[in-house]
Amino acid sequence: VVEKEEGVTVDALLFDVFGTLVDWRTSLIDELTAFAAARGLTVPVAALVDDWRGAYVPSMDGVRRGSLPWTCLDALHRLSLDALLAREGLDLAEADRAHLARAWHRLRPWPDTVPGMTRLRARYPLGSLSNGNVALQVHLARFAGLPFDVLFSAEQFRRYKPDPEVYLGACAWLALPPARVMLVAAHNRDLDGARAVGMHTAFVARPTEYGPRQDRDLAPSAGVDVAASDLVELADRLGA
Amino acid sequence: VVEKEEGVTVDALLFDVFGTLVDWRTSLIDELTAFAAARGLTVPVAALVDDWRGAYVPSMDGVRRGSLPWTCLDALHRLSLDALLAREGLDLAEADRAHLARAWHRLRPWPDTVPGMTRLRARYPLGSLSNGNVALQVHLARFAGLPFDVLFSAEQFRRYKPDPEVYLGACAWLALPPARVMLVAAHNRDLDGARAVGMHTAFVARPTEYGPRQDRDLAPSAGVDVAASDLVELADRLGA
Repeated sequence: VVEKEEGVTVDALLFDVFGTLVDWRTSLIDELTAFAAARGLTVPVAALVDDWRGAYVPSMDGVRRGSLPWTCLDALHRLSLDALLAREGLDLAEADRAHLARAWHRLRPWPDTVPGMTRLRARYPLGSLSNGNVALQVHLARFAGLPFDVLFSAEQFRRYKPDPEVYLGACAWLALPPARVMLVAAHNRDLDGARAVGMHTAFVARPTEYGPRQDRDLAPSAGVDVAASDLVELADRLGA
Repeated sequence: VVEKEEGVTVDALLFDVFGTLVDWRTSLIDELTAFAAARGLTVPVAALVDDWRGAYVPSMDGVRRGSLPWTCLDALHRLSLDALLAREGLDLAEADRAHLARAWHRLRPWPDTVPGMTRLRARYPLGSLSNGNVALQVHLARFAGLPFDVLFSAEQFRRYKPDPEVYLGACAWLALPPARVMLVAAHNRDLDGARAVGMHTAFVARPTEYGPRQDRDLAPSAGVDVAASDLVELADRLGA
């Protein structure tokens, strides 16, 4: 790993949430497995979860390019769930669909997430900077016990990351120039968006986020300030 | 105390901050007293603090009526501080003025605030709904140990309470209709604003917020759902 700089000093840390702080894939697989067993349904659970997450970037990009009006992530998750259920020939009741779409509110943190954030919070104000809408983040942070000081959401700017308005808007609300704020994320696309507006960046490796055959985001792209194997190591690296 | 209704059920609580959760007056008096002693200055501390807070509503109302462009509360505090220092003939250095204006980030909670919020948070998601800008709230919540799930600020809507956009905007981000959200505040003007958009309201008495001769907000105005002497009693009343 090549790191741009040691001794970076910032006044606040912002965190990507899905994948970086919570393990959406195994959490959703467990939810869908339990649901299918309770209903006596045969469902290709892992494929469904991977395809559900796979719909995430294309659906947001529709909003980003203007081919869809502003639609929050809970609503995008529900739209893509309905499409996947139709494909699988699963005609679920409304209450079941709503329950499954809300599974994104019940994701487990990685083992290092809460201990690492707790150490980092003793030194830095911690905010989220997530494409998840505010209500989703409130529920998820409570479920997973994520110790944030403040939540920032794409919804508040009606733009999705990596659009620059999201990063710049959160820094403005922190009353800090982007160069005094660090984004922590497991995804190079997100870190590149933050770096483009002048923020510092920390890459945290989540090599099984997408499952055992993950082939992306295994290492940081050029220009990252700090790279760490998890959030406890990041706390070490940032002196927290 | 006449209460409109027992057994109100809501899905989230929003809190006013200054006065309701933190004791700005004695905190600022202590800050200014220590500052004056350190500098060997003679300052009418209590009068200065009362006049500083007294400038709050008129300065916000200038923004609300459009005679001032959007100006965040930190900046309004600094403007009114500068005017008061000029009146007192105190020519302070820039660093001292910045330090004093930031005293609003270092306010102590009332004794019941953290225990009451901690109990309420076990049952309800808790958000702020304050005219304080986001950065001010982040620093204050960390300083005072306020256990919020999410912060909402007038700054995010570029409107000050009691403008309806602030209340409606926070409810929309919670993905809840106003009738499922309760505002907790010590000020009838704020509670009236929340009630006007359909929110539930809880009055918490802070009879010494404005000092020993307080003559306002000693009792709730008509229409409040719940009235409590402090946040621990509110937790009792809401079954938390």
